[in-house]
Amino acid sequence: MADALKIGVAGLGTVGASLVRILQERHEMLATTCGRPIELIAVAARDRTKDRGVDLSKAVWFEDAVALASEAEIDVFVELMGGAGDPAYSSVKAALERGIHVVTANKALLAKHGIELAGIAEEQGALLNYEAAVAGGIPVIKALRESLTGNTVSRVYGIMNGTCNYILTKMEKEGLTFKACLEEAQRLGYAEADPTFDIEGNDTAHKLSILTSLAFGTAIAADDIYLEGITNISIEDIQAAADLGYRIKLLGVAQRTDSGIEQRVHPTMVPHDSVIAQVDGVTNAVAVESDILGELLMVGPGAGGNATASAVLGDIADIAKSRPGAQHVPAFGRPTTALMPYKRARMQSHEGGYFIRLKVVDRTGVFANIAGHMAENDISLESIMQHSKHYADPAEPKTIILVTHATHEASVRKAIVSIKSEGYLVGEPQVIRIERPKDW
Amino acid sequence: MADALKIGVAGLGTVGASLVRILQERHEMLATTCGRPIELIAVAARDRTKDRGVDLSKAVWFEDAVALASEAEIDVFVELMGGAGDPAYSSVKAALERGIHVVTANKALLAKHGIELAGIAEEQGALLNYEAAVAGGIPVIKALRESLTGNTVSRVYGIMNGTCNYILTKMEKEGLTFKACLEEAQRLGYAEADPTFDIEGNDTAHKLSILTSLAFGTAIAADDIYLEGITNISIEDIQAAADLGYRIKLLGVAQRTDSGIEQRVHPTMVPHDSVIAQVDGVTNAVAVESDILGELLMVGPGAGGNATASAVLGDIADIAKSRPGAQHVPAFGRPTTALMPYKRARMQSHEGGYFIRLKVVDRTGVFANIAGHMAENDISLESIMQHSKHYADPAEPKTIILVTHATHEASVRKAIVSIKSEGYLVGEPQVIRIERPKDW
Repeated sequence: MADALKIGVAGLGTVGASLVRILQERHEMLATTCGRPIELIAVAARDRTKDRGVDLSKAVWFEDAVALASEAEIDVFVELMGGAGDPAYSSVKAALERGIHVVTANKALLAKHGIELAGIAEEQGALLNYEAAVAGGIPVIKALRESLTGNTVSRVYGIMNGTCNYILTKMEKEGLTFKACLEEAQRLGYAEADPTFDIEGNDTAHKLSILTSLAFGTAIAADDIYLEGITNISIEDIQAAADLGYRIKLLGVAQRTDSGIEQRVHPTMVPHDSVIAQVDGVTNAVAVESDILGELLMVGPGAGGNATASAVLGDIADIAKSRPGAQHVPAFGRPTTALMPYKRARMQSHEGGYFIRLKVVDRTGVFANIAGHMAENDISLESIMQHSKHYADPAEPKTIILVTHATHEASVRKAIVSIKSEGYLVGEPQVIRIERPKDW
Repeated sequence: MADALKIGVAGLGTVGASLVRILQERHEMLATTCGRPIELIAVAARDRTKDRGVDLSKAVWFEDAVALASEAEIDVFVELMGGAGDPAYSSVKAALERGIHVVTANKALLAKHGIELAGIAEEQGALLNYEAAVAGGIPVIKALRESLTGNTVSRVYGIMNGTCNYILTKMEKEGLTFKACLEEAQRLGYAEADPTFDIEGNDTAHKLSILTSLAFGTAIAADDIYLEGITNISIEDIQAAADLGYRIKLLGVAQRTDSGIEQRVHPTMVPHDSVIAQVDGVTNAVAVESDILGELLMVGPGAGGNATASAVLGDIADIAKSRPGAQHVPAFGRPTTALMPYKRARMQSHEGGYFIRLKVVDRTGVFANIAGHMAENDISLESIMQHSKHYADPAEPKTIILVTHATHEASVRKAIVSIKSEGYLVGEPQVIRIERPKDW
């Protein structure tokens, strides 16, 4: 059996503690599978006195992750601290500069510094593995980086934030408001005390930016993503979607178009009988459409200490199974020098179907006027209907729901501006894009 | 850039021709991704004169695959001939004995000789890659062999035969008979002229036996699988399933139980709102339940020249990215000497829910008598109902449908024997097992 693989772990939160426990409990099984033992020889965390339920007596303790990465006699540096800044950034960089392999679950770090770090890894012949950074336990990085080699990807999309999917699922199944479902998610630990980063779509955007680079061979452009969160989604939207045969999901979508790459995160209506529509609760799902393989969909746990630790462990095992300096696996699928610049497709030129919900005062001719504005903008309608209650008070505003055939974002925005100028609208119009998964 | 990876391809059918075309058209892209060019230097096929739509002028032609595997100066032998016997077996063996890596899409070969071949590969430090052998383009081998390292798998199951799933989907959606749907599948090229191997479940069993070995670390036991095909499934079953909130799929299931490992292939009722129930047509799906990661489901194309070629290419690329002798990736996840013997769990001890459809003569007390036999065998019923038509002719037999809570196969079989002995049954009872995917 080959020499032990010596690892150092920085960050002993939920994921770090899970990982350490698994490495200890399954020491022998891992040695058999990997052909060599995996030894935890160093850890870094702030509070040395905290009981993490794992035995750390054999590991050298560093208060400073950068010191661990710079000094410890390790083969792999495992970064589980999180955050785009320090100590995550400096410690990962320090490890790679020494030619030490890095495994990280840190999406924010990669979204911001991924290409720079990948470049250092290549120069030093080190691996930079980050399966856990996107969609937790779902092996989507491996699929894009390894399985799909040779394919040209046309679209990658998915449900990548468990908090949002939990809230949307609960709103639909129990008819509760966004606020009530968010509070329940917070109670269950599925949402942070400050949930902004999740519910506004930033977390999904970070993950999407990494997938985009892998899928299209471009530099990461995490700040160049069209972003809409789910705070604006009402029960009325969810019910109207259901009536029309759709469900609402927060999707991250990256798509190759004639004018560049579209990266967008927004609430999306997907057909009710599509596979991805059935993905409920905190579960994640990622789909990749490519020209040789066709469409691949992967569904699994997107977060949680164990699922994330499992992905980290898979990355460590890949290194254990390879031999030092033995592999050519560029972090983003191709050498950083061969990555193409990211060219953003403007959101205005996005093509797709739209769901539009309008509240209007009950006045003769409104229906025809709305239809007219759509026609003026060359928007072809799949349906237009008035949602009426059993007893309709003429003084109450009426709800009109439109579903368009594929059209341009610019046309929809123009039509909405025209409709707004007519003066019969009550409140803001709701616009939700429709995404059609490939037919299975 | 490192030296070219030299490959020889044996078998130039649909998959082989697709692979050769892709290797030529994407030569540069592959060299960038893999860090070295991939060169096709030798091919073997029977008919040299046949036009396969690809340029083979630069490859040395072998009439004999074994000669190619034994003599050609290649780094990788790609076996795409199929069949458990020769020339597939001897050529793969010859290549591995020379220490040459092998990539194959041949499930029958692996189901029969996989462990022997894996042993030779290990001795010689060669890789034996076979992503395309199970579920076509779905990277389930990679997920089990690499991503799930360290996990203990409890169940793996899936839709692994496109022909059967196409037929069952079409029967449900269009209300056509099994025979009509099979003929349509044959017309579209989704079913062979002799479809026995697919529709009787043997193809699924081969694939399942490979997944079982990878998932549970046991020797392959392809002949030790409980097998039931779909020829017996009627529209009545499908409609009754739909009424009860289920869909019928041909699943291969391998499951860890107290008494050993259950391997079974049979028509299965899955809840209508489960993700796997939405997998239609020729699409495949494989789910893996493990203790650290949780449940992972992968959906994608299970067959077809391009999807299969994509999986083969992924396997070749993995070798191209590694360096000769540089990796320790045992073919079945652990060294063959560390594989455990397969211990079969008896089908009689299977536990699960059952759907039972009986045709009975219309006689007072039959209903109570059936319920009585169930109770005698400690079978708890979820529902029992009589399917009646709008106009029921008393002389016509009546259909009674039972759905049980989780019970034992042995109890169900005993109850059926008792019911049969009563003399009120018309024809054979239909029994379909219910499988519950983990709740997402």
